[in-house]
Amino acid sequence: MSQRLKVKQILSDDKTHYEATVKGWVRSFRNNQFIALNDGSTNNNLQIVIDAENTDAALLKRITTGAAISAAGQVIPSMGKGQRVELKAETLEILGDCDPEKYPLQLKNKPSLEYLREIAHLRFRTNTFGAIFRIRHSLAFAVHKFFNDRGFVYLHTPIVTASDAEGAGEMFRVTTLDMKNPPRTEAGEIDYKEDFFGRSTNLTVSGQLEGELGAMAFGEIYTFGPTFRAENSNTARHLAEFWMIEPEMAFYALEDNMDLAEAFIKSLISHILEHNREDLDFLATRLAEEEKQKPQQERSDMGLIEKLEFVLHNEFVRITYTEAIDILKDSKPNRNKKFQYLIEGWGADLQSEHERYLVEKHFRKPVILTDYPKEIKSFYMKLNDDNKTVRAMDILFPGIGEIVGGSQREEDYDKLVQRMQDMHVPVDELSWYLDTRRFGTAPHSGFGLGFERMMLFVTGMTNIRDVIPFPRTPKSAEF
Amino acid sequence: MSQRLKVKQILSDDKTHYEATVKGWVRSFRNNQFIALNDGSTNNNLQIVIDAENTDAALLKRITTGAAISAAGQVIPSMGKGQRVELKAETLEILGDCDPEKYPLQLKNKPSLEYLREIAHLRFRTNTFGAIFRIRHSLAFAVHKFFNDRGFVYLHTPIVTASDAEGAGEMFRVTTLDMKNPPRTEAGEIDYKEDFFGRSTNLTVSGQLEGELGAMAFGEIYTFGPTFRAENSNTARHLAEFWMIEPEMAFYALEDNMDLAEAFIKSLISHILEHNREDLDFLATRLAEEEKQKPQQERSDMGLIEKLEFVLHNEFVRITYTEAIDILKDSKPNRNKKFQYLIEGWGADLQSEHERYLVEKHFRKPVILTDYPKEIKSFYMKLNDDNKTVRAMDILFPGIGEIVGGSQREEDYDKLVQRMQDMHVPVDELSWYLDTRRFGTAPHSGFGLGFERMMLFVTGMTNIRDVIPFPRTPKSAEF
Repeated sequence: MSQRLKVKQILSDDKTHYEATVKGWVRSFRNNQFIALNDGSTNNNLQIVIDAENTDAALLKRITTGAAISAAGQVIPSMGKGQRVELKAETLEILGDCDPEKYPLQLKNKPSLEYLREIAHLRFRTNTFGAIFRIRHSLAFAVHKFFNDRGFVYLHTPIVTASDAEGAGEMFRVTTLDMKNPPRTEAGEIDYKEDFFGRSTNLTVSGQLEGELGAMAFGEIYTFGPTFRAENSNTARHLAEFWMIEPEMAFYALEDNMDLAEAFIKSLISHILEHNREDLDFLATRLAEEEKQKPQQERSDMGLIEKLEFVLHNEFVRITYTEAIDILKDSKPNRNKKFQYLIEGWGADLQSEHERYLVEKHFRKPVILTDYPKEIKSFYMKLNDDNKTVRAMDILFPGIGEIVGGSQREEDYDKLVQRMQDMHVPVDELSWYLDTRRFGTAPHSGFGLGFERMMLFVTGMTNIRDVIPFPRTPKSAEF
Repeated sequence: MSQRLKVKQILSDDKTHYEATVKGWVRSFRNNQFIALNDGSTNNNLQIVIDAENTDAALLKRITTGAAISAAGQVIPSMGKGQRVELKAETLEILGDCDPEKYPLQLKNKPSLEYLREIAHLRFRTNTFGAIFRIRHSLAFAVHKFFNDRGFVYLHTPIVTASDAEGAGEMFRVTTLDMKNPPRTEAGEIDYKEDFFGRSTNLTVSGQLEGELGAMAFGEIYTFGPTFRAENSNTARHLAEFWMIEPEMAFYALEDNMDLAEAFIKSLISHILEHNREDLDFLATRLAEEEKQKPQQERSDMGLIEKLEFVLHNEFVRITYTEAIDILKDSKPNRNKKFQYLIEGWGADLQSEHERYLVEKHFRKPVILTDYPKEIKSFYMKLNDDNKTVRAMDILFPGIGEIVGGSQREEDYDKLVQRMQDMHVPVDELSWYLDTRRFGTAPHSGFGLGFERMMLFVTGMTNIRDVIPFPRTPKSAEF
């Protein structure tokens, strides 16, 4: 038998007139003659031409959408429209049947994204989700490549943790105790000393604190792993389980941190534009069609590819929180009381509507906001000399809002302990974290990028459940 | 100020006589003149020469092991032994002090691995753990590179799951229910419908089943993420949280699966031999010294580098379980009743002692064992025509035992359901999994590689807690 080749390879090769075997799934079969075969290597199908007259009728009947087949024959130039080459089948074998009466993707009408979410185990087989998850792969690889090229160390920070890293939100408990009859202390409390880890444990909300330990030895590290929030938010923007990338760098001031984050995001976009153009084009077309359904004023003025290239080729705007407040206070929607939360003055926590105004209306560019009031940020952020603001930076993206949150970290032991006490963070429990400030402390910075937020931006999808293979949300943990 | 350069860059560059700024941590300071500076980019230190006579005595006192410093000056050829170049400091700044009375790594005696496990947050700063975790980074990158180069799709399978994938072991519960007063059904059972996900959920033991869903769309996928076992095993080989790599490939028979696994392992070894030679050499020396403490007959006959090159350049032995039983039954330790578990005949589950005999004594090579009795393997493995054995394959490594477990999967719907029923696997709950066999099933295979097992092999370390940054084990979830 001739060598098995992937569809992507055959379609991208200039060669013709050679023997090949292909294996994949039937996307369509028309005129009892033309099979569109997909093997997952690309969204494009290979046309297989069969000689219906000399093919068993029973076999022909089994060539249905979704069936797995193996075909061998000559790769030849195609006479038909839409493809350069096709495979003239000499042999054809059905590896696995697919009953057209039962197959959910057999539907003549295009299945909705909502319906496909219910059959997430099969949605990979559609063009849309094929494109999305090949891009997700590339984006993940680009993350590793970016940091590897720069000498960062990939640090696997723990998933099960006894510490609530930053008070970042509600946590999931991890336990092996008998829920029906847990051991109790004399005082009647649950006795977590009897639990698997000998203490109360949760799923991590962030690898940052452990990441800082790594940065203070390797200089530059990053994490890339699952993180969790037990928030009961059933929205298109929230997941209970999502992936996050958290680099942490010794000897980086806030400016270095911003430079790195901007270079990082641009390198991700550059990578997929180079490696996933077909899939991006497919999603761009999908998005353009979706936009057509919207009223004129809600449509985006840029297509998906344009938007990616715009971010790639423009510097992000960098302004302080204080400057942003001035802009917002004086903005039309604030003066006309169109904001739901009006900006009265300095100190206000920015809402999504404000971030979107800055990014989408005022600057029309990604914006990095820095130096937020200390009251609305985490304990570990470096206090500025004004004693009012911290060296935080949030990167805001059009349509997405905050895509990166980061800061220069407070490296001074005394100041950090003071902040922890002010914010009721347990100093004793984080004694190991404080050791980085006790022993050879140094200026350092880091940030977190929500991987699914980035996926939303590069795919043009609007529901975060459509960019992770198996979404975990309140009341749902299917598959 | 001159540009900040990493120590690795300065030491690997042929240039001399140029200005540079370096930042890092003091490893040692001798004669009030020579600082050995480490910045985590390499195990090698940069010698910084300071002009003690013209340096403030108070500053000199603060140059202690562990202190973070910044130094700038000329990179010049070194007169001293042990280094090609050194930095003649013109300016020196202490960024963070390190009290020699309190710093745990200040010890004059070499700290033990056991002690370093207790201060895992600081052990990255030692040569041994610097080398280990730079290698861990490279090994992880090599995983992604191998699969990316071959067109595999990286699939993030879920961490929180409602299914017990393969009955692979004890699981951790994930819950937000109030442990003190959980909601109950009328029958008095815990009412998991009230839990966050609306059902009982656990931490995943394997991404395989979800991986198969991906393979039946993308053709070839892999996972690389944390997996969990709530087994109360306090040994040098077990972790409650560990990382696993699980590729899953449509249209692969068992032979293709073995070919891929062997090529994969060799590419990992080849990658680190190419990129981490200094760190490997350091660990090889460490291991050789450790071996010297052992009685002659317990010593390994190969050094670390030799062992890696041996695996790289030799084909793995491939034999069936049945052949292995014949060898073991007839072996000296079996005949002399030296095995703890004597091999009486076909059907016996192989113990570590048997695996080690095959790999370390009989073949003296990595061994792939195939076609195990169905009774001792999982439900999803393809049944052979003999109706007795399944198309399983385990790869056994010297000193490690099983490093890879895999199989061709049962693609036949009826046979698979029969096996599930025989083995009391709930068919209804895995209806989504069975859909891969209902709709366009195809021969497919996959395997799992325990990342920390591989780390043990390539680093020569013997305790698995020393090759993961923050080990999770019974009664321990520090940091």
